[in-house]
Parts: sequence; structure tokens; C-alpha cells
Amino acid sequence: MALSIGMLGYRFMGRAHANALARLPMFFPDAPAVERDVVIGRDESALADAADRLGFARTATDWRDVIGEVDVFYNLGPNHLHAEPSIAALEAGVPVLCEKPLAADDAAAERMARAAADADVPTATAFNYRYVPAIQYAKRLLDAGELGEIRHFRGHYLQDWLVDPDAPWSWRLDADLAGSGALGDLGAHTIDLARYLVGDVAEVSGQLQTFVDERPAPDGDGTREVTVDDAYSAQVTFENGAVGTLEASRFATGHENDHTIAIHGSKGSLRFGLERLNELEVKFEGDRGYQRVLVTDEDDPYGDRWWPPGHVLGWEHTFVHENYEFLTAVAEGGEYRPNFADGEAVQRVLATIEESDERGERLPVK
Amino acid sequence: MALSIGMLGYRFMGRAHANALARLPMFFPDAPAVERDVVIGRDESALADAADRLGFARTATDWRDVIGEVDVFYNLGPNHLHAEPSIAALEAGVPVLCEKPLAADDAAAERMARAAADADVPTATAFNYRYVPAIQYAKRLLDAGELGEIRHFRGHYLQDWLVDPDAPWSWRLDADLAGSGALGDLGAHTIDLARYLVGDVAEVSGQLQTFVDERPAPDGDGTREVTVDDAYSAQVTFENGAVGTLEASRFATGHENDHTIAIHGSKGSLRFGLERLNELEVKFEGDRGYQRVLVTDEDDPYGDRWWPPGHVLGWEHTFVHENYEFLTAVAEGGEYRPNFADGEAVQRVLATIEESDERGERLPVK
Amino acid sequence: MALSIGMLGYRFMGRAHANALARLPMFFPDAPAVERDVVIGRDESALADAADRLGFARTATDWRDVIGEVDVFYNLGPNHLHAEPSIAALEAGVPVLCEKPLAADDAAAERMARAAADADVPTATAFNYRYVPAIQYAKRLLDAGELGEIRHFRGHYLQDWLVDPDAPWSWRLDADLAGSGALGDLGAHTIDLARYLVGDVAEVSGQLQTFVDERPAPDGDGTREVTVDDAYSAQVTFENGAVGTLEASRFATGHENDHTIAIHGSKGSLRFGLERLNELEVKFEGDRGYQRVLVTDEDDPYGDRWWPPGHVLGWEHTFVHENYEFLTAVAEGGEYRPNFADGEAVQRVLATIEESDERGERLPVK
Amino acid sequence: MALSIGMLGYRFMGRAHANALARLPMFFPDAPAVERDVVIGRDESALADAADRLGFARTATDWRDVIGEVDVFYNLGPNHLHAEPSIAALEAGVPVLCEKPLAADDAAAERMARAAADADVPTATAFNYRYVPAIQYAKRLLDAGELGEIRHFRGHYLQDWLVDPDAPWSWRLDADLAGSGALGDLGAHTIDLARYLVGDVAEVSGQLQTFVDERPAPDGDGTREVTVDDAYSAQVTFENGAVGTLEASRFATGHENDHTIAIHGSKGSLRFGLERLNELEVKFEGDRGYQRVLVTDEDDPYGDRWWPPGHVLGWEHTFVHENYEFLTAVAEGGEYRPNFADGEAVQRVLATIEESDERGERLPVK
Repeated sequence: MALSIGMLGYRFMGRAHANALARLPMFFPDAPAVERDVVIGRDESALADAADRLGFARTATDWRDVIGEVDVFYNLGPNHLHAEPSIAALEAGVPVLCEKPLAADDAAAERMARAAADADVPTATAFNYRYVPAIQYAKRLLDAGELGEIRHFRGHYLQDWLVDPDAPWSWRLDADLAGSGALGDLGAHTIDLARYLVGDVAEVSGQLQTFVDERPAPDGDGTREVTVDDAYSAQVTFENGAVGTLEASRFATGHENDHTIAIHGSKGSLRFGLERLNELEVKFEGDRGYQRVLVTDEDDPYGDRWWPPGHVLGWEHTFVHENYEFLTAVAEGGEYRPNFADGEAVQRVLATIEESDERGERLPVK
Repeated sequence: MALSIGMLGYRFMGRAHANALARLPMFFPDAPAVERDVVIGRDESALADAADRLGFARTATDWRDVIGEVDVFYNLGPNHLHAEPSIAALEAGVPVLCEKPLAADDAAAERMARAAADADVPTATAFNYRYVPAIQYAKRLLDAGELGEIRHFRGHYLQDWLVDPDAPWSWRLDADLAGSGALGDLGAHTIDLARYLVGDVAEVSGQLQTFVDERPAPDGDGTREVTVDDAYSAQVTFENGAVGTLEASRFATGHENDHTIAIHGSKGSLRFGLERLNELEVKFEGDRGYQRVLVTDEDDPYGDRWWPPGHVLGWEHTFVHENYEFLTAVAEGGEYRPNFADGEAVQRVLATIEESDERGERLPVK
Repeated sequence: MALSIGMLGYRFMGRAHANALARLPMFFPDAPAVERDVVIGRDESALADAADRLGFARTATDWRDVIGEVDVFYNLGPNHLHAEPSIAALEAGVPVLCEKPLAADDAAAERMARAAADADVPTATAFNYRYVPAIQYAKRLLDAGELGEIRHFRGHYLQDWLVDPDAPWSWRLDADLAGSGALGDLGAHTIDLARYLVGDVAEVSGQLQTFVDERPAPDGDGTREVTVDDAYSAQVTFENGAVGTLEASRFATGHENDHTIAIHGSKGSLRFGLERLNELEVKFEGDRGYQRVLVTDEDDPYGDRWWPPGHVLGWEHTFVHENYEFLTAVAEGGEYRPNFADGEAVQRVLATIEESDERGERLPVK
Repeated sequence: MALSIGMLGYRFMGRAHANALARLPMFFPDAPAVERDVVIGRDESALADAADRLGFARTATDWRDVIGEVDVFYNLGPNHLHAEPSIAALEAGVPVLCEKPLAADDAAAERMARAAADADVPTATAFNYRYVPAIQYAKRLLDAGELGEIRHFRGHYLQDWLVDPDAPWSWRLDADLAGSGALGDLGAHTIDLARYLVGDVAEVSGQLQTFVDERPAPDGDGTREVTVDDAYSAQVTFENGAVGTLEASRFATGHENDHTIAIHGSKGSLRFGLERLNELEVKFEGDRGYQRVLVTDEDDPYGDRWWPPGHVLGWEHTFVHENYEFLTAVAEGGEYRPNFADGEAVQRVLATIEESDERGERLPVK
């Protein structure tokens, strides 16, 4: 019996997940069979096109109508629509994959995490970068102690699509709809990797900045206020004694999607950048410098699933891995990480960074 | 009406093309509809598995049985099996995509090219690297004259899977089955890019080398002779006055699939490496150094088909582009390049390099 | 008449400055003539060797004996010895070059800056990295507005000589002798470059960390306490609205002397790393990526003084440039920057970072 | 007793060697004492300036007048002036350092090598790149067998100062004065490194190209013919069975002084580029990729002579090392390499490449 999928949202993330689902049978034949059942949205015409293009059997304009009919619910809507449908699905016992950040604020995230705990079905917060093979390989090294005791984490996520002050306003620039700006959109990824690779964050001091306060309305009629951050940074201490610096910006001229992390341990160091996602630079104990490891060997993470060594993967493959792991957990009743509890933990760090900035004080993460 | 595909071969290249075919509808909805009809091979059991995995409707153990029944024939078999089935298909008026190099020797390649000319249907020699977006972008720059008059081409294709003298013998190391070694397998790609980007080759001097003359038989019983080159190099002059150096090796320790080219013109230069295939380094006129161009923008080649800027593609996407262009030509009766004539032209360069090495003389390409 | 130089300190920095003085005549014939007069220290035997090796005419064991006899005083001693001799020299009307950071604490720095202002002779805080040609070239670009309005500054200075917890204690790990640790030793350089290239710092929040609290005494007898930071980070806002993140560590495994900065402006961006000090990466307006600029052309800063384009300089050349500029200012009565006022400004930022860390609060720089 | 030096030539190479001599006492106190005695040239006024600037005691306009008066003769003149004065010096028992290539043709080189053998004093062909610490470190690795059996050598030396067809004619473009073009000027360096690191060359096939046949006369009056190569390439086999490709160009847009070599062995590989001369990339046995080794550690070649780890050297330091080694051999009667015999061996390879190009045949090196 194939797992039927209901998917709210059909744009960028919709395509990424639909593509992942479509690719499972050829490369992950052990994945559970999946039926792209219903795609959910408000614009009926766009919805019909999307269903056709993305291979879904039917459409729905209200998630309430279908949430009880599907085996798995994918919530790919805007941040302020993450909580209600996800919680409803969980209350109906339906496993949920929700895009990141988990919610527009930490109160909503907490309700979602509680619903997940009560439902006792697998949940996923879609931090897909955990599923880059190079990141999984880094995790192997860290778990094996090859880097020793971790001292430093450094992560920046740089984009430049707001550099032009005349770039138009969008929902992503509104605090009510998006929660926060670069912090939630980009920083959430960095914080998830920090937690995955280093551990829980104990204390933070945050700094948020909005460079351009208002922007042309998308309908061309006047301007609208920007109520989220254009850039953030944070200094963090981890519970294990490591320290970290985090940063993201939408004003980093020359960087389109540059998510870079670095870790220094007592025995070694590593570096990763999303624009070269097949590579991990590792300074192993005894080495004189960083080795550039092309993480495409057969015994590398997911290396036996795709192509021979040296034949590189792309960004979208992270979604295939993520969907494979999540759906396998759904089918087999296993645990999936990062789940809603992880998503909520990230949200608490985000909220603390924001509060720290407002108060001008270093704060413990609640 | 969907185009029915018959595909000889189902291993590495079979997966790459089947995957490409499967991905067309979601990302290239304007591509002709395709039916994965029949997969052809000798081992019935492996064949059945492959059909299942790769999504083909049926299997055949003799290409003669089905060559007249399909709309398009994909020849992905070993080099010495390229000629006969491809020619038979063409004689039946069936368009053919054949893996590279076009044939195991230039006589076979010539017969194939003649059959293609007679048949007057689209043919493809599957030099997929032409369909890397960064290479297409390089081609745009060259065609627009942005690099000026071309002076130098440099290409090397480095692998290291034969470094170990105890690595077992395979058909790729036999001159009768494979034609040549690094020269035909890797050099063919480099020469195709050289012709595509710079122009036809006028003269060559070649140097072939076999470092390990015999290797353990794959069945563990004694050794077998290596009758192809482990590495080759060539110096070439192009008809337009540019000069070039070409090189490939299966003994380049530390390089798994490193296909790198560089071009210097009177106004600018460019560099490309397959392991970072989303990037093109370009020194534009007036610049002080090479720019690293991430070729993922919306108006970059195929940039509007996939993901937003900065979301990188992988090796397999080259096959999607190649299949899209070839099948579109088939459906619309257009021209496709690189076709069998291109494949034959490359083969003549390969043969001349080999002859030049044997004679110790610089030779014109016939 | 040659300028006579008195130099306190003769180890690492002594060699660097003596070498710079020795090289001026051949490459900067327009520099004032200089007489390496007296080298000052406590260990008479080591001093005699140093004078011989570094080309000084005589030695002195007490700076008080010679401070009035020299034309220029170079204070290259440990941080806690910066203030008294420098002030004495200034009170005697002698120009002073002092190594960085200007003092072990901001009170001392303030006294030194006041003495400099009163003396009205050129002073130098030896932030030599301003005199890397690539940094001077970056300054040219910034002054010409080629990067537009500055949004981000990012600087880290990574070393790893304390990674081993058994690395011995030294004066650099004592707050009374050194002032601070990575913050003052490394961070001072970063802050000077930030001020030079971006502008004055308005607010900071700092985070200091000591990973290893005590270390083997250098005499092998027990352990001694580490009372300075092993690593620091800071978030800053500049007076012009830009934001920045700063970081340094002596625990960054795999990095020996990695001082890296990045700047993003509304029109362009740049990156610099000390280990490749001949290069500046610049993303100019209209470019698709960073250009790697090899800053060795004839019209690059100091480019006409040394070798033809493409013949790279080393770390020590920064001292030659610094000495040339400072001594020229001394001889001609001009202004030299960075002077003691600059050194004090850096010191105030350092002190505010430290205080911010202690109080857990974001603080304005006094 | 200081060794007195007579130096023919005072421009680029004159400054490089004079600087090296001047720096020995401070950094190589164990080097023999040296007296910059006499600088030799034709233009009396320029000569006087040079003597002043470079620190020579006197000048001479005819080398014959002084060749018997000096302890060591440095021949830094144009290639066609290498033979006669060097041989005269040797016949007078004076050790000679001669700039590369050793002569304008192989007959002259042979006479010089014979004179050196007869004289039995140290000679040097000034292939300074052997004295880059990273190259010496590479040599250590190779001698220790860390790369195993060598399979491949690849070297290119790319410059772009002739890209503009209106760049003026100079003596370097005249076969009678310079011998050859890119081949002798740049290729000589590559071949010396190939011999040093891999071994003697057995066979070559060469390809020379002149892109622009005539250029504006330097006096502005008409044009003059270019009779040397603008670019060359060569395929070589080494006596030990390795193969190599060599290349140089003065038309490589975007490359000012890019001398890059790569070596692949059965156990490891290495890469070096002159523009980042402090770095060696090494793929050691068992590594997954190249390590970037910053060759500035205390136990690296010459690492204890200069600055602490991570403080990089420049191009000119190679001359200091070269002069140190050569003068030490002179003072102590030891052997110095690369000597005139090495220079002649390189010259024979150069001549064979040229002859191979003319005849269109692969040729053994005599």
C-alpha cells in the first residue's frame, strides 16, 4: 500500500519535494511506495497546473477538507501557516513534514512540538542541509571523535537579493507573516547544523539590523514597511563549552546562496560551503593542512545510491535523502530527526537571539 | 503520441539516461512525451531487474528483434557494439543516440557517420559535457567574441582508478573491445569540447603510455594483457591558428573525475573543472583577474528550468539537458549536435593521435 | 644627517624592523637616511648578539640612559612596557613607533595618546597590516566609492598554538603583563583594519573565552594560571551604520596566522587573507563573481618599488612600507597614521569588548 | 676575508641578486662575508646609479678589465653574452653564477659546461625556483619516496605580456639575441624543475608557435620581425618511465607570472604554483584529497632562518637561498647544484624541443 501524500504549497518547496518523491523509486527502491495524492492551495487555476506538473492526483483549496484523508502531510506554506494545519494533522494521527523555520514565533513552535509529542508519529522540520552527504560525513567524523573536543563553530549564510533598496517588498519582509527576516529564514539552517554537529546552545547575544526600512509595494502603489531584520549575527556558547559566531545577511553583495560553516576541535577542523556541496575540507589530526574531500565515494553517505566517485550531486539531492529518511520512518514507525522538537529548539534560539538584541543583553536559551 | 525508446545497455549509462527521461516532464514540460519501452541486453535476469528499476515496459535479448519497433534507439553498449546496431537502426529510419566514443575505431565511426547522413534523422554522440550550463555559457561568451581571438586550449581529464598495479583487468583495457584506453574514454570528451569551443583540429602529435602491461584476470585466474593506453597526451593546432595541449590519465593519484579545460583568447580567458561544474572562471576584458561565475542565474543556460540562483546542479543534469535537446530535435525534425558526424570527427582526431604516437611524427588530421 | 634609531626589544619584532630599516636604501632611496644606533634590553649578552646581527652600533640596558640621545624611538617591548618609555621619549620630543596593541590597558593607552598630542611629533602604532599593498589597494577602492555604502565587515584572526593543553605558560597568557589574550594580540589588528577601511566603531558586544585555565610553568615547576582569553568574538556597529563580526582564537586548529577580512558594500565586496597577502578578491559592480586581483602591478601600492608584476612580496615587506612612511613623516614633519590616537581608539574598543563580556551587555564605545 | 663579487648586469636580475647579497648577514650569519665590489655594464651613467643603489664599490664598462680581480663572477647579462665572459672567468679560476637559460644555443652551453668542468670551481645556473622552500620540501618528499613511483609531470609557465599585438619589439623576441622565446625564457625553468624533481628527460616532441610575426620597433620606426616562439609545448618521457607535458606562453591572458607544476606518483601527488609560493598542495598516501601545506614551519626548508610559522615569504627570498648555497659552496669548496652541467642539460632539452618542432618528429635528447 502506497503512502498517500497531501502537500500544502506548490511553489519552490513544492517542486523540490515533488521532485524528491518522484526520484525515490529509481534510486531508493527500498523506500516506501508513495502516492502523490492531493496538492493544497488557494488559487484553483495555479493549483491545477501545479498538480499536473508535480504529478499529484487531485487538488484541494482547504486543508481541512483533506487532512484526514492522507497518510502523510507536507506543510510547505508560509511560516504563519505552519502551526494550525500541522497541529490538525497531528491530532488526526497524520505524520507531518513542515518547512523551516518551524513557526513564525516560538509560542506557535511550542504548540506544534507539543502536538507532535502527543501524536507519537514521526515529524520532520525540513532542515534539508543535514542531508547533504558532506554534512553527514562531517557528522560521522565528529561522532567518531576525529576532531577531538570542539572549541569553535562558525556559520554564515550570505545572500544578496535585498542589496538594491528598490527591490520590492514581499511577505518575507513582514514580521507578522514571516516571524523574522534573515534570522529565521537563513539563521534557522545555521542553528540547526550547529545543534546537529556541535550540540545545544546555552547562551546567546544577538544583533539584528535592518538597512532599508521601507520598500516599494509589490503592486507598485507606494511603499511598505520592512519589519524584519536584513541581517543578524549572534555569539553563542554551547552547553559543551564550545563557542560560536553566527551570521546571515540578505545584503552580502556577491553571494547568492552561500551557507558556510567551520568547526575547530582539539584534534582537527572542518569547513563546508553550500555552493560546493560535494566537498568537505577536513584538517585531520597529524595533517599539515585541510584536505579537500570529495564526498562522492561509494562508502560515503548515500554514495552507493547515485553515481560513481567523482560524479557530483546537486542541491536537490538533499531533498531526496530527507524524504527517503522521513518516509522510511513513517512506514516503519521509526524515529526521524530533525523532528518538531528539533524545530522548536531552533525556534527558541531564534527567539532568544531576537530578545537579546532588543534588550542589549546576553541571555540564556530557555 | 509518446516517442517509444529502445535502450541497449542498462548499467551506469542506462541509469543516467533513464533518470534523465524520467525527469523531463516535471522540468521540461515542453519536451516530447516519451515512453520507456524496451531495454535490451543479454542477461535476462539482470535485464528484468533493470527494466523494473529504470521504468521500462519490456525487455529484449537481441536488438535485432526490436530495432524496427521503437521511435528512438539509445545505444549505450560497449564501444565495439556501437556500430552494427546503430547502423541497423538508422537504416530503419530510427534516430540514434550513441554513447561516446562513437566507435572502437575510425573505420567503424566512418560507417556510422555515413549511415547517419543517409538516414537523414537526428543522431547524437553522447558527449554530455557540452550540456553543462557552464560550458554552454562559455560557448555563448566565445560566440559573442568576448574572449577575442583564441590562442590556447588546454584540457586534461584525470582519474586514478588504475594506480594500483593489482587493480583487475577489464574490457576497458583491451584494444579490441574498447578501441583505446584513456585516449578514447576520456580524451574523446576533451576533444569534443575543444572542437565545440575552439574549432576543428588541423594537426596533432600524440604520446600514449601504458604503465602497467598486465593485470590480474577478473576471474582471479592468472593475468591478462593490457593493450590500451593508461595515459595519453597530445599537442594540437587548430585550423584557426590556436594551439592546444590535451592529456588524460587513469594514473593521476588523487583525481577521481577531474575534467578541466582552459582557454586563453586575445581579450579574455576561461577555466572550467567538472568537479565544480556549476562554476566557470572567466577573465573578462578589462578585469584584473578571473571572476568565479556561479552559472545558476535565471538567464543562464537552463537556469530557468531548475532552482533559484545559487542552488547548484549535479552531474546527472547534463543528461537531462542532452536528452531534452535530442528528443526535441527528433520530435520536431530539427538538427541535433553533437551528432554522428561530430562523433566521427572526434574519432579521426583520436585515430590520428594514436598513429602519430606510433610513427613518432606530427600528423595532419585526415 | 641620518636619523638615529633607538630600539627597545630585539627579538621577533626587532628583527622585523631592523630588516625593514636595512632594506630602505635599495628600494626606497627617497627615504631618510637612518642610523641603527642603539638597541635596548636587559640581557647584556643577548643584546650584544642582537646588535651584531641586526646592525646596531651600540647597546643599552636602560632606556632612560639613551632616550634623549636618539632621533627616533622604537618601542618593541612587551605590552606592559609600552607606556613609560614611550611617554618619556615623547616628553623629550622624540618621535615614537610603538608595537601593538598600544598598551596593556586603556588607561595607559590614553596617557600615551595624550603625550603624543602634547609632543606634536609623529607617532606610530605599528599596525603593519595597513601596509600590505592589497589592503592599501582595498582602501583606494573604498575611498573611491567602488564598493558603495558599506554594510558588513567580517574579520577573523585564527591561530592554533595553544590547542595543546600542555603548551607551556608564557607572559602572553598573563593579564597583568599582556593586558588581554587573543583579543589584544590578534583582535587589535582586526579592529585597526576595521577602523581604517570602514570607520569608527559605535557599539560592541563581546564574548571572551578561556578554554584551558592553567598551563605548565615554563620552568617546568607546576602550573601557572591563564588569566587572559584564548579566544574572543565581538559584534559591532559602526558609526556609519555598517555592522560587523570580529573573532580571534589561539585554538583554531589548522590555522597558523590566518587573518582574514571581508567587506560587503551596496555595490561590491572584497576579501583578504594574510596567508595570501599578494591577493585581494574583489567583486566589482556589474561583475558576476569575485575577481582575484594579484596586487603586484606597477601602479598598485608600492608596486613600482619592488619587482615586476606577478613577483610576489612577503610578510616582512609590510614593515618596510610602514618604516618608510613613518620615517618620511618624521623627516619631513608630516602626519603618520596609524598614530597613537589610532592606537588608543583601538584600545578603547578592546576595553569595551572586554567590559561588555563581563557585564553581558552591549555597550557604546567611549 | 670577504668574497669580492663582480656582477655583469644591473637591471632586474642585478637588483634581485644585490638584494640577496645584502640580506645574507642578518638572516644567514653563517654565509661567507661578501663584498659587492664591481658592477659591469656599458652605459656609464646608468652604471654609476646602479652601483650607488645596489651598493657596489665601483663600476667597469668592460668585463675583461675586472674578471681576474674578483672572487666570484655573476653573469646577469642577456643570453647571448653568457658564454664568453663566463668562460673567461672560469679560465681564470673564478666561480661563476650565470642567469638562465645558460646560453642562447646548445653549442654555447656545451662550451660553458666544458669550461666549468675544466675549472673545477663551483658554478651556478640561476634556476632560482629550486630554492623556493615549497619546492625543496617537495624534493624531500620525493627523495623519501612519499609519492611512490612517479608517473606524470605537468608544468606550465603562463604570462601575458605579448597579448597585445602592438606591444613593442624587444631583444627577447630576436632569435640571435635571446636564442628562443617562451621556450628558453620560461620553459628552461620548468625543465630544470622537472629534472630536479623527476629526473632526466629521454625523449621529447615539441611544438612552437609564433602568433604575431612582427611588432612595432621600440624606437617607433616601422616594425621588426619576431623570430622566436610566443608559446611552446612539449611532450616528454623521462628516463625513469614517467611522462610529462610542458607548456609556456606569453599570450596567456590573465596570467602574469604563473609557473605551475604538478606531479603524480603511485602513492601521492603534489601541485605548486609560483603566485602562491608559500604553499604546496600534497596528496599523501591514504589521504582523501590534497592538503594545502603552508611551507613556513621551523623545520621546513629555510624555515628557521626567517619568521615564525605562517609569516609568508616572497619571490625574492629564493635568490637569498640560492646565493647562500652558492657562496657557501664557493667558500667551502663544495658542490653547488644546479651548476653549468645542469644548465647545459636543460639547454639540450630546449634544443631538442626546437628541433623536434622543426622536423615534426619525436626525438631523443642527445
